[in-house]
Amino acid sequence: MSDILIPFSEIHQNLAAILKTYGFSSDRADVCAKLFAKADLDGVRSHGVNKFLKFLEFIRKGNVKPNNEPILESSLGVFERWDGLLGVGNLNAEFAMSRAIKISEQFGIGCVALKNTNHWMRAGNFGWQAVDSGKIGICFTNTKPNMPAWGGSEPTLGNNPLVIAIPRKNGPVVLDMAMSQFAYGKLENYVRSNKKAPFPAGFDEEGNLTKDPEPILKNEMALPAGMWKGAGLSLVLNMLAATLSGGDSTHQVNTSGSEIGVSQVFLCFDPVKLGMESWFDQKCDDIIENLKNSKVFEGQKVLYPGENILNTRSKNRIQGVPVDKKVWGKILKELE
Amino acid sequence: MSDILIPFSEIHQNLAAILKTYGFSSDRADVCAKLFAKADLDGVRSHGVNKFLKFLEFIRKGNVKPNNEPILESSLGVFERWDGLLGVGNLNAEFAMSRAIKISEQFGIGCVALKNTNHWMRAGNFGWQAVDSGKIGICFTNTKPNMPAWGGSEPTLGNNPLVIAIPRKNGPVVLDMAMSQFAYGKLENYVRSNKKAPFPAGFDEEGNLTKDPEPILKNEMALPAGMWKGAGLSLVLNMLAATLSGGDSTHQVNTSGSEIGVSQVFLCFDPVKLGMESWFDQKCDDIIENLKNSKVFEGQKVLYPGENILNTRSKNRIQGVPVDKKVWGKILKELE
Repeated sequence: MSDILIPFSEIHQNLAAILKTYGFSSDRADVCAKLFAKADLDGVRSHGVNKFLKFLEFIRKGNVKPNNEPILESSLGVFERWDGLLGVGNLNAEFAMSRAIKISEQFGIGCVALKNTNHWMRAGNFGWQAVDSGKIGICFTNTKPNMPAWGGSEPTLGNNPLVIAIPRKNGPVVLDMAMSQFAYGKLENYVRSNKKAPFPAGFDEEGNLTKDPEPILKNEMALPAGMWKGAGLSLVLNMLAATLSGGDSTHQVNTSGSEIGVSQVFLCFDPVKLGMESWFDQKCDDIIENLKNSKVFEGQKVLYPGENILNTRSKNRIQGVPVDKKVWGKILKELE
Repeated sequence: MSDILIPFSEIHQNLAAILKTYGFSSDRADVCAKLFAKADLDGVRSHGVNKFLKFLEFIRKGNVKPNNEPILESSLGVFERWDGLLGVGNLNAEFAMSRAIKISEQFGIGCVALKNTNHWMRAGNFGWQAVDSGKIGICFTNTKPNMPAWGGSEPTLGNNPLVIAIPRKNGPVVLDMAMSQFAYGKLENYVRSNKKAPFPAGFDEEGNLTKDPEPILKNEMALPAGMWKGAGLSLVLNMLAATLSGGDSTHQVNTSGSEIGVSQVFLCFDPVKLGMESWFDQKCDDIIENLKNSKVFEGQKVLYPGENILNTRSKNRIQGVPVDKKVWGKILKELE
């Protein structure tokens, strides 16, 4: 793998141009491409350009319908339920979060449940979307089964990414965590560089915890983060996503053999409408200051979730965004 | 430790009688005692009778004010903020969840933030309270610092218990998890029986992961569940609890040397008001059925969160509730 540095706008424009050849309207191509490019800009390379070709394949297969926009199923003031009509995952999610933001401005809290949508790619994008408009944003999605239950010997649970994002002038706190201890993308990197994971990362075929990424990848047996705790959290997030949206649950998502039609929830709190303005910034700053002043073990450093993103983003804006050369070459072929 | 079996009603009545001698009104003594007794009834023995003497000590010290009831600070339809006035933690929490339940019946969603309250004892009680009235209930609390940040060498984060409870006719799903991989109470049990933890449970003095409970207990260096993931989740739950309630954050909770004045959030969704009735039960049952049908490793069994509670509860109702004989003797002394 060798990287090249490409200006953000160039990535954005090229991806948008390709999406137009796939039937996207101009506006939708623009936003969808920007969301992909932003993942790389922020250093979340597993879910940017590196996922783009697979995304195109999903469109070609008809799994993702480029111009289907969500339709409102029901509305109850603070809560809205939308049908994503198997449209574009990141566009649907961005729309749903924008609705949750708007509702929270009116009622203090806004909640949107979305069914029949597709993989939203980088989860953190929608947390940043919330904090960029000054809101606390929480969102989660179910996925296909890709992680065992605690004690289980086959993938039964989804890794169900969860985002909790808190606005902060001196650097938002954006937790973006899947329920597996290590992402499969990370485990693939360990295989490529012939390394083991630094901590137990899943189960081998006898059910022992292992740091060896190969059997874990082969059988989709990633360790739930916090073992029984992450397994439990994954289960209840799936239950919440499927029931609130009225959509499919993890075991239904993969029946076709592809991950199609996931269920998601977006929840916003508006600090202004909820009357927190006089204390919000101070409390957040105090908590982060206390964290950063924590004594550490030799050679260690304490970070808050999302802390590195702003640095990576500004570095990449200046120097260009690192992109895998081979992958980028294949993507540009789509324009030929 | 030897146990005796005591009828639930006898535990309940004795604790209530003691609380009256501590100045509790008759009604408040009754509910507070019942919440303690319910923890033991459900097999959560760390936070029932075994915490009662410490609770009495907190009252004697003036940390917990027996008859202070929460007062409403602000209200915005779907959201209410209450000041717990350093009252009784379990009573305040039960009240807050009852408000969240009521609000959700009106708006579909109900959220209550509570500041200046005290340890709510068994977290799961308030999840069961929600599901017993047919609501999805989510609640969390901050605590004093009792867990290191990821990389940190001193307790900086709270273990901030989180409850996510989903009603279900054939057995509610009630996730009740603190952010540490193992509770300190469990680690103390390992010390008493001269055992190690089955998985790494915290850090030794050099910062290595260890299964040895002693150095972990000595320095309050419990491992966050999911390592950096549980540490991140603990941080954001603390930020949410402190900002939404306007109350103290983890690092402020312990300034007196005692855990006083924590912040909590209670969130309910009403499946009926939110129009989920036609699919709710079926979806929940399908998810649980799928989970229970998961293939398992030899000798393993897959459980959903809270699955054992109903069995334990009915067994204890029939046979009596197991209580530590010595502890019970000390408690009865309070009535002499």
